[in-house]
Amino acid sequence: MSTPFVPASTAEIHRRWLYRRHPAGVVGPEHYELVEAPLSLELSDGEALVRMRYVSVDPYMRINQSLKPTYNELPHALDTVQTAGAVGQVVASKSAAFAPGDWVEGMMGWQTHARVHQGALRKLDPALAPVSTALGVLGMPGRTAWFGLTESGRPHAGEVVVVSGAAGAVGSLVAQFAKRHGCRVLGIAGGAAKCDWLTGTLGLDWALDYKAFESADALSAAIKQRTGGVDVYFDNVGGWITDAIIPIINRRARIVICGTISQYSGGLDVPELGPRFLHHMLYQRATIQGMLARDYLHRMDEMIRITGPWVQRGEIVFEETVVHGFDKLPATLNQLFTGDHRGKLLVEV
Amino acid sequence: MSTPFVPASTAEIHRRWLYRRHPAGVVGPEHYELVEAPLSLELSDGEALVRMRYVSVDPYMRINQSLKPTYNELPHALDTVQTAGAVGQVVASKSAAFAPGDWVEGMMGWQTHARVHQGALRKLDPALAPVSTALGVLGMPGRTAWFGLTESGRPHAGEVVVVSGAAGAVGSLVAQFAKRHGCRVLGIAGGAAKCDWLTGTLGLDWALDYKAFESADALSAAIKQRTGGVDVYFDNVGGWITDAIIPIINRRARIVICGTISQYSGGLDVPELGPRFLHHMLYQRATIQGMLARDYLHRMDEMIRITGPWVQRGEIVFEETVVHGFDKLPATLNQLFTGDHRGKLLVEV
Repeated sequence: MSTPFVPASTAEIHRRWLYRRHPAGVVGPEHYELVEAPLSLELSDGEALVRMRYVSVDPYMRINQSLKPTYNELPHALDTVQTAGAVGQVVASKSAAFAPGDWVEGMMGWQTHARVHQGALRKLDPALAPVSTALGVLGMPGRTAWFGLTESGRPHAGEVVVVSGAAGAVGSLVAQFAKRHGCRVLGIAGGAAKCDWLTGTLGLDWALDYKAFESADALSAAIKQRTGGVDVYFDNVGGWITDAIIPIINRRARIVICGTISQYSGGLDVPELGPRFLHHMLYQRATIQGMLARDYLHRMDEMIRITGPWVQRGEIVFEETVVHGFDKLPATLNQLFTGDHRGKLLVEV
Repeated sequence: MSTPFVPASTAEIHRRWLYRRHPAGVVGPEHYELVEAPLSLELSDGEALVRMRYVSVDPYMRINQSLKPTYNELPHALDTVQTAGAVGQVVASKSAAFAPGDWVEGMMGWQTHARVHQGALRKLDPALAPVSTALGVLGMPGRTAWFGLTESGRPHAGEVVVVSGAAGAVGSLVAQFAKRHGCRVLGIAGGAAKCDWLTGTLGLDWALDYKAFESADALSAAIKQRTGGVDVYFDNVGGWITDAIIPIINRRARIVICGTISQYSGGLDVPELGPRFLHHMLYQRATIQGMLARDYLHRMDEMIRITGPWVQRGEIVFEETVVHGFDKLPATLNQLFTGDHRGKLLVEV
């Protein structure tokens, strides 16, 4: 990064976004509150003070706001800083592992500064790729895409891979990784512009705009007509798009449940109704497997060994939509569910 | 078998049940017709003539009557003999592999006699177990239970295994095989008598009568209270019972889809609606896998090597409900969906 390093100062303001209210539907700024205080430079042994540069917004944040048990036993605590991955620069350190000026990534939350134990930080190499990629292609979304596809999807050359949410942070990577496996790939996204990007820029075999279909049956027929049937379905969205795919899976298909974003604005608390489909699993002896990025955290090095050089050589398209301004964080989270971004959505502090 | 062998004779009547009409709901006698003709003794080289003793009725028969594609591309052809597993005795042979008097099993259909190529017959050892077991514990249901549990369920000692349709031909075996793996096993069945049998005779840890519950939530709470959560769910029924289990699966649970009998009387053609649940797969990183007995046909010897001695030593409870009379076949098939039998339902010719 070319930005000159500025040491920490008590003149800085420590800004934090607190999660204040549970959303019943779509999450937005009304559920958060911005609080400010003078920055404390206090550190214990083994800790570093980090000044944030990029803060992430991710769909999982809304899962953690569900009032029912999720992958966490309890929902995100009210009146605490919104949990989030972030990238920043060490500006003071009592850790031998981190020096002022180092770039780091960690679950530092929606705040301008964080006092973090060294064990919760990952040092970044700015020479490998821009540090923002630690929240995208070389971070959690990349890990989700790589291990979800390889470990749960298990794609083979010649197979048909369908990706929903294909223009998103995870989906756009899954689609490209599947192409590298020799698969024929169909992406599903909202709007003609995203679909043009999927075929034109990402090189997918097919892209379908789900907004152009009246029903699951119509979408199903269009996918079947193009692909002949689906071997791997990488699902980021759930709901009626998933209903369209399950009846056209091939023998021994693998369905990867990476996300169900269509259900994240209420459906996790009170489930939507949809057509029962388990008989299709029987007919095709197919597998559905849920996966979470956290299960592969200890295998980050494997992913970076393989995908890092692709990123460095410019062979992977990873679009970042960067929103400028720490104050825009809750509105940007809301955009995940209502907006029209491509690739990874980030806030630059 | 103590029955004296009677050679084939043209004086015998060849009776066949033809599948005549597609059922919209529950299948029954009105969808079949019994036809009779003098028995032909004609055989080509490599063929045997078999006189049936036991003919099977199985839930999959109703799947094959669905008008939508299933595991077969086309539904069961009208005006042909109902496909079925059967056990009989060779009464004439032009095959070096089979001699008159041999007991055999094969997909010989709902008929009193069948002319069968030797490649479609499996010779039975009447000294190992009664020949009727070739349609039950040592046949397709046993294979389904064994490989469904071991290959898809992958149970471990100490885990909780829940079996729906636990008093049925497959379920009652799954439950006992799971106990042998050191699992704690809860069976779900209809009626107090079946539940008493599951705990008293089969030795399950718990049994629940689903008919005693008002809702999926109530059943779910009762299972959770007893087991603490579910590691393996072996599903024979689908529908609301499955809805009760999915929210209480444990981390990395395995759900085996062996059948969805609650949906076999119309729901395969026009799917019922049920609550969406894929988010639970995500939360628990769980797996759903469909399985069919046919995929393990080539591994029958493995199963018999392991379970055959258990059966021979009387260590496995395998109840057979034997209906007497070839003319009762369609009514007996109907009983699968409406009746109250335990274990394997069979017709003795």
